[in-house]
Amino acid sequence: MAIDGRAAGTLYGVGVGPGDPELLTLKALRLIRSAALIAYPAPDTGSSFARDIVEQYLPEGVPEHAIRIPMQSNRFPVKAIYDEAAATLAPVLEAGEDVVVLCEGDPFFYGSFMYLHARLANAFTCEVVPGVSSVMAGGALSARPLASLTESFAVVPAPLAETRLASLLAEHDNLVFLKVGRHLAKVRGVIDAAGLTENAVYMERIGTAQQRCLALNELDADTAPYFSLIQVNKRQGDPL
Amino acid sequence: MAIDGRAAGTLYGVGVGPGDPELLTLKALRLIRSAALIAYPAPDTGSSFARDIVEQYLPEGVPEHAIRIPMQSNRFPVKAIYDEAAATLAPVLEAGEDVVVLCEGDPFFYGSFMYLHARLANAFTCEVVPGVSSVMAGGALSARPLASLTESFAVVPAPLAETRLASLLAEHDNLVFLKVGRHLAKVRGVIDAAGLTENAVYMERIGTAQQRCLALNELDADTAPYFSLIQVNKRQGDPL
Repeated sequence: MAIDGRAAGTLYGVGVGPGDPELLTLKALRLIRSAALIAYPAPDTGSSFARDIVEQYLPEGVPEHAIRIPMQSNRFPVKAIYDEAAATLAPVLEAGEDVVVLCEGDPFFYGSFMYLHARLANAFTCEVVPGVSSVMAGGALSARPLASLTESFAVVPAPLAETRLASLLAEHDNLVFLKVGRHLAKVRGVIDAAGLTENAVYMERIGTAQQRCLALNELDADTAPYFSLIQVNKRQGDPL
Repeated sequence: MAIDGRAAGTLYGVGVGPGDPELLTLKALRLIRSAALIAYPAPDTGSSFARDIVEQYLPEGVPEHAIRIPMQSNRFPVKAIYDEAAATLAPVLEAGEDVVVLCEGDPFFYGSFMYLHARLANAFTCEVVPGVSSVMAGGALSARPLASLTESFAVVPAPLAETRLASLLAEHDNLVFLKVGRHLAKVRGVIDAAGLTENAVYMERIGTAQQRCLALNELDADTAPYFSLIQVNKRQGDPL
């Protein structure tokens, strides 16, 4: 896995946090500054959110590779796009260069880096650099602890069926519903039915200039952006 | 809440990540370097893990306050200790000084900062600075994605009853058992009974020089340190 006896490069999946550039880790910053190639997911057209977060830290002139992902849900995920991205990055690694893949939040927590990892980790040294998840940033923004002591905690993607959302809400002390987006009405219905609307906080675009955080019962909307979540904590107040 | 018309200081709960000093965020570093007082949880005797993580970044001569917590489980948590810590920090804030409380991992994710927050947030400006959780660092270390796409994810404290552990394991696609420690045999039994031992990875002291990561079926022990976790993922391989 090397050319002319040179050691192959390392593939780094680097978490860049939820949106605030100051929530980058020191390790992420070091790796971004020394990468031979910076890759990142991006929409069909327009800028990459992961790249936007770290734009100020990118070394001048560093080569970049955008992995363009169609955002329509019926076309995502697309195996072929990641096959192609892996085929693009492999020769760079073979040539002994390190590649940094930027990942919103944490690379292995609902991140797309895992698709590259599945394609390249058998052939190359891969390292995942954990990042601050939007879930943790959500607890900080809402000023409500996510979980304490022996409480349970669940992260539940909002696209799941209503009955499953209700069952998970019944079972856990604390939940975060992710990817609320066009599932807002369904999630809100489940929370209402459980009598937990007063315990729910809605947040969108956490860590960006457009971030919003409000009590769910103050939200006047039927849909939400893709980057939105709802935090529910059954216990309120001092956990001691 | 201010003395002589001076604005009161801000209480910062600052996540310092799971153990590797390089997993500190840029924001945490900035706040630590400008704090008037640094506080942190610490055992009865000996050094504070949160302080150890950031020791190299502490400004010379900055005043420190250790919040000493007895580690015996029957004496923890202790309301009076946090009442006293809040009473110690309040006059500093009233005097217009910023206080940074160091928190292992993330402050609001099973962290003790929430007890101070419950005591001081009504009277003072409080800001939580999210950090990298040991859960995310565990996924990076095990090289196994924590959750993808519409999979569910649960964090389950190991002290919970065996039947509840089993029920949560049955319900979720992905789980992390926290605080395994002396509950190792119980957790292992639950995972074995569900036929998921091959899908489980054991980790301890993540991010420190003493970290260990091995398949659960290779672990030859009946107890584990307090800072240990077990990651279980039902699906293996490429999530696409």
